[in-house]
Amino acid sequence: MEPKRSSPLSWGMVGGGLGSQIGEPHRIAARMDGLFALDAAALDLVPARGRAYARELGVAPARAYGDWQAMLAGEGARDERLQLVTVATPNSTHFEIARALMRGGFNVFCEKPLTVSVEQAVKLARTADETGRLLAVNFCYSGYPMMRQARAMVEAGELGHIRVVVAEFAHGHHADAAAADNPRSRWRYDPAQAGNSAVMADCGIHALHLATYVTGQPVRALSADFASCVPGRVLEDDALLALEFDGGARGRLWTSAVAVGQMHGLTLRVFGERGGLRWAQEQPDQLYWTPLGQATRIVERGGAGAMGPALAASRVAGGHPQGFVSAISTLYRDLHAVITGDEQAGAWLPGVAAGVHMVKAVAAAARSAAAGGQRQTV
Amino acid sequence: MEPKRSSPLSWGMVGGGLGSQIGEPHRIAARMDGLFALDAAALDLVPARGRAYARELGVAPARAYGDWQAMLAGEGARDERLQLVTVATPNSTHFEIARALMRGGFNVFCEKPLTVSVEQAVKLARTADETGRLLAVNFCYSGYPMMRQARAMVEAGELGHIRVVVAEFAHGHHADAAAADNPRSRWRYDPAQAGNSAVMADCGIHALHLATYVTGQPVRALSADFASCVPGRVLEDDALLALEFDGGARGRLWTSAVAVGQMHGLTLRVFGERGGLRWAQEQPDQLYWTPLGQATRIVERGGAGAMGPALAASRVAGGHPQGFVSAISTLYRDLHAVITGDEQAGAWLPGVAAGVHMVKAVAAAARSAAAGGQRQTV
Amino acid sequence: MEPKRSSPLSWGMVGGGLGSQIGEPHRIAARMDGLFALDAAALDLVPARGRAYARELGVAPARAYGDWQAMLAGEGARDERLQLVTVATPNSTHFEIARALMRGGFNVFCEKPLTVSVEQAVKLARTADETGRLLAVNFCYSGYPMMRQARAMVEAGELGHIRVVVAEFAHGHHADAAAADNPRSRWRYDPAQAGNSAVMADCGIHALHLATYVTGQPVRALSADFASCVPGRVLEDDALLALEFDGGARGRLWTSAVAVGQMHGLTLRVFGERGGLRWAQEQPDQLYWTPLGQATRIVERGGAGAMGPALAASRVAGGHPQGFVSAISTLYRDLHAVITGDEQAGAWLPGVAAGVHMVKAVAAAARSAAAGGQRQTV
Amino acid sequence: MEPKRSSPLSWGMVGGGLGSQIGEPHRIAARMDGLFALDAAALDLVPARGRAYARELGVAPARAYGDWQAMLAGEGARDERLQLVTVATPNSTHFEIARALMRGGFNVFCEKPLTVSVEQAVKLARTADETGRLLAVNFCYSGYPMMRQARAMVEAGELGHIRVVVAEFAHGHHADAAAADNPRSRWRYDPAQAGNSAVMADCGIHALHLATYVTGQPVRALSADFASCVPGRVLEDDALLALEFDGGARGRLWTSAVAVGQMHGLTLRVFGERGGLRWAQEQPDQLYWTPLGQATRIVERGGAGAMGPALAASRVAGGHPQGFVSAISTLYRDLHAVITGDEQAGAWLPGVAAGVHMVKAVAAAARSAAAGGQRQTV
Repeated sequence: MEPKRSSPLSWGMVGGGLGSQIGEPHRIAARMDGLFALDAAALDLVPARGRAYARELGVAPARAYGDWQAMLAGEGARDERLQLVTVATPNSTHFEIARALMRGGFNVFCEKPLTVSVEQAVKLARTADETGRLLAVNFCYSGYPMMRQARAMVEAGELGHIRVVVAEFAHGHHADAAAADNPRSRWRYDPAQAGNSAVMADCGIHALHLATYVTGQPVRALSADFASCVPGRVLEDDALLALEFDGGARGRLWTSAVAVGQMHGLTLRVFGERGGLRWAQEQPDQLYWTPLGQATRIVERGGAGAMGPALAASRVAGGHPQGFVSAISTLYRDLHAVITGDEQAGAWLPGVAAGVHMVKAVAAAARSAAAGGQRQTV
Repeated sequence: MEPKRSSPLSWGMVGGGLGSQIGEPHRIAARMDGLFALDAAALDLVPARGRAYARELGVAPARAYGDWQAMLAGEGARDERLQLVTVATPNSTHFEIARALMRGGFNVFCEKPLTVSVEQAVKLARTADETGRLLAVNFCYSGYPMMRQARAMVEAGELGHIRVVVAEFAHGHHADAAAADNPRSRWRYDPAQAGNSAVMADCGIHALHLATYVTGQPVRALSADFASCVPGRVLEDDALLALEFDGGARGRLWTSAVAVGQMHGLTLRVFGERGGLRWAQEQPDQLYWTPLGQATRIVERGGAGAMGPALAASRVAGGHPQGFVSAISTLYRDLHAVITGDEQAGAWLPGVAAGVHMVKAVAAAARSAAAGGQRQTV
Repeated sequence: MEPKRSSPLSWGMVGGGLGSQIGEPHRIAARMDGLFALDAAALDLVPARGRAYARELGVAPARAYGDWQAMLAGEGARDERLQLVTVATPNSTHFEIARALMRGGFNVFCEKPLTVSVEQAVKLARTADETGRLLAVNFCYSGYPMMRQARAMVEAGELGHIRVVVAEFAHGHHADAAAADNPRSRWRYDPAQAGNSAVMADCGIHALHLATYVTGQPVRALSADFASCVPGRVLEDDALLALEFDGGARGRLWTSAVAVGQMHGLTLRVFGERGGLRWAQEQPDQLYWTPLGQATRIVERGGAGAMGPALAASRVAGGHPQGFVSAISTLYRDLHAVITGDEQAGAWLPGVAAGVHMVKAVAAAARSAAAGGQRQTV
Repeated sequence: MEPKRSSPLSWGMVGGGLGSQIGEPHRIAARMDGLFALDAAALDLVPARGRAYARELGVAPARAYGDWQAMLAGEGARDERLQLVTVATPNSTHFEIARALMRGGFNVFCEKPLTVSVEQAVKLARTADETGRLLAVNFCYSGYPMMRQARAMVEAGELGHIRVVVAEFAHGHHADAAAADNPRSRWRYDPAQAGNSAVMADCGIHALHLATYVTGQPVRALSADFASCVPGRVLEDDALLALEFDGGARGRLWTSAVAVGQMHGLTLRVFGERGGLRWAQEQPDQLYWTPLGQATRIVERGGAGAMGPALAASRVAGGHPQGFVSAISTLYRDLHAVITGDEQAGAWLPGVAAGVHMVKAVAAAARSAAAGGQRQTV
């Protein structure tokens, strides 16, 4: 469904410059539906490089900033305000930047994890509350149509009481010990830069978010086992979590960065008293649905059985694969809807509560792992 | 790889209005990389509806036209010319519109099939030649990174001499006899509106184009068996072709619109003396490659073994599925590159020669089927 | 379901000796259910080797024969007769051996193709008729539970009128030109030893048989395109057939021996006015079933929706894969049932009519290919 | 590879009567290769039914016993001894029966779990040692060719140091609360009959055994989270384990009986410093192998890269699926080899050490779960 649009919303970015893995997907996603125009940016830690790249992307020279402080000052002084700013900087800077932006009057769409400590996350939530600004978090996989389908099915009672949720996000891109010093990945395993968790904060967090997003159940408690498989790493590159959800469901979560042969193994399985669901991010348009005692059905995005929230997130006819950037784009649609006054859209957009909850869950996992797997409340 | 861009090219659309299946994918694809701005449009057979929708899409009122003739006149009179016009109207109108646009000085990106007769196709090619305008055809599946990988592997000799190509494009969306009168599909089976072929001209043409695109071998001759399975249909809804390619390869092509259970069954298999390739559109990021006498390898977009042309068509890291609109978008990248003077890009863009060749091949298939399967040269 | 058995039937083999690819599967299959005891054998063209191997397999020395003529004489003279003899010799010898065995009073289970000429096949059918002996043919894939499920579903009208059947059997084991002189495969491409067809008679015949077995429709006419891809081969190593079935269905069949990367690509798809089925031999326990307008269902052997004929052919609980030898074993169960007087079992066992029909179809394909694809009645 | 065989070994069964799920697979497996002849049996708790069924299976009336005590007495008195007795009775009886059989001089092949307590297991091991009898355990999945391939690859160093092993065995066959009183499954969740564990002792044990079998590393310590999802159950129907192996690998194991939609979800993934392996029981002939930094390869049973131990366990050419009973049959081949003096075969046969170790591991898991997930040494 092609969204209605008048003129696009005015949009800014902090971070996500040349060579960033997540910058371009954000820009494609924001641009795809024509709902946002990139009017201002501070893309890089290296000011000149950031300004040059912003201009290359079509940002007016005066609004191509060298750092986020300059952008905040410059944009704060304009009458025509940016209606959304995306923050895609290193994790440890999210707190300061997002807080300043909200205080400056801007809505913020922040990369995950929202912050690197629970204290920061709670403060940021308070800032959002005090300033009345929108603060959303890029749990991008929740934008996949079939994850919305899964949530809609759970909400409709198709699975009955949820018993077990099994979530995975395992890849092998950090498995090579010989490449452990690669600066693109090394910082993730350094507590000074990454906080108390590596692969759980980076990947497991997405799997856990999906589990809560689809079931509607926050995590109540958990225990965790962390492993650092590649010699020299301080933080974990493999983790296992046993989870208890608020509604009584149990969770099993495995995440890894050393799973050689797995490209992007994000999967979700939900088992209830009346049926089961199965989904894999690498083949996102199919949801496997087994009603208790019946044959498994392959529910296709755009096919028989697809429900409203899945159709609303569809851009092309079923059978034409709809990929990762479309999932992010759906979050930008949600953001556009919320910003332009559609309150219902907020129900599907991962917001500040989800962002804070996930930071708490990751912290609880790190505490549990440090305590030999002791159960921790979240 | 995020393309370099200064200001986007000025772009227009004829057809592809509200409710069109292909209009929105074109717009998303053109917009994704920020390379084209929709400045003018004549979107609909119903003028008021077309103008209204164009304005909704952000086109200035003066350039939101009621029909293509008005657009041609209006845009032809401007100093700042549209640099590309996409034609997404009913097949039988492609010829007249594309010819007029080229004669008016515009580059054209035309939906497939290029025309509904060989005569028209040949004339259009002549017009492109005479006017020096670009005429490209939206064989969109050639924009998938792994189809470019496949072509690059064939060109590099990885398969050796090609022996057999097996191509399929079979879906079941026109299988319901009770829905045969649906106006969205009925016209396809009416010779007055669709010409001499239905599912071959609509779907099989894509599979055949991929076969020629990947192997670099045009079709020399073919024989065809057409079936009209749903009662009342005049044109075929299922077809089988035996093909001979210029380089000596044999082809086997099946296409169908009554294959209940298949969503979008476009697949390509290429077998050479040194190895085989296998690909399916519904899981486009993987190419299965078997070197003769060795285990099959799963070549991932963005993974080990991915070659330059595949990487150039990649937008996100491997493992994050890249879908259908990204494939079209790659053709828009190619168009942008060619229009801005990059001659090499033309090698990967399906151009007028491919468009004409496919019209000839479909016509030959229809002739063969009418003659009881007699071999026809293309 | 474990079959009732008293003492096993007395069983003999001609062919299938040491190093034969099909001999051991026959023996495992016959032995699995304890329904047959190998009491006599002439296993090899080399008498001493055949006798030695038969003794190694537990055959009494006196009944371990050097050739089939000796076995016919020896066994014919016994009071306690063999109740079934399996013929697994080179194709060109089937006719003579099977005829002699039936005339000698023995029931025969013959490898496919039944004979290398239509004339032989018709004569053999007459012999079966005259002698009243059972003559069945090892179209082994019809023993897979989910092929019986498919047939039962078609018979029950679940698909309605059948429109299109798509069958494949393509492998790559004869693709290596450097190994074309390998004596294990060379004879297949030599008209003197193999008759008028190679891959069609060897592999395509199975795919075609399944198409007729599941739909219950014999082939009425066909046209064929044969290719000899590996230099030096006389007979075809790749073939495409367009088929017309008696009930009005159309068929598309591709078979190949040069499809590098395909291990054993035997697949069947059946599309009717009310739904579609999809099956692949390499994952035989699942049948994909799409009722028109509904989501595809994965019908599991032993799971919800499995019908009587599928359950009857099941040996272990669903989810425990049941493989190739079990499929042959199901034919031995059928043989046991027929021989011990269960007439209903005969409906599921590929008999002399199927054997003759397939020889005719292969011959028609060879004629059509030789005549440039001209349509041939079968 | 068809094994050499003279006359089959004399074989007996205790348990596995009419309606038993595992009885028939044992008989098929033992019979397939012609290596064992069922000469004596006590198949059922109901003596008359057991005797009748044994006779139906071809056992001589005098050796068709009403209970195992009678069989022990009768067979113990014969000169010609049974060379192997399979024990397929309820778990809680394994100890007494296996001990008595070994003391009576018989080799024993026991169903898993070896016993229901560690104390029993240790005693049984001692008995085996004292009597010099063979005691093996039916960890049947270790008979799959590609599990032997995986072990051979690990032994050959292809994966380098093993870092993480992920094992699953999850099905949904006990998910229906309305069927929880079904006598075929109810006993499993009753501590009086099943001991301290249900799904872990029944299913998880197989996954864990494969992990140790393939890596060659016993479990050193573990922690477990057990859930009883279906109301009324005392023992667990879902479990998660974090494992430490002797060689330093970490393990993640999930097992469930309430995973609606999973038929027989036994999977194994092994990740080492030099590569990763992936295998699923429902598609057992393929092993996915990713050398670090290279594309994933699909190693086929019987295809390129298959190693000796995989080929030795193959019965039919690659591409012809080889199923579950063949896996058990491979263990019977191993048993035959060991009994007839081939000591090397013992290396691949799960023996008493594996049986005891698995009982200890299950007990440790139950202890850990009862202690809130506290780490337990095994």
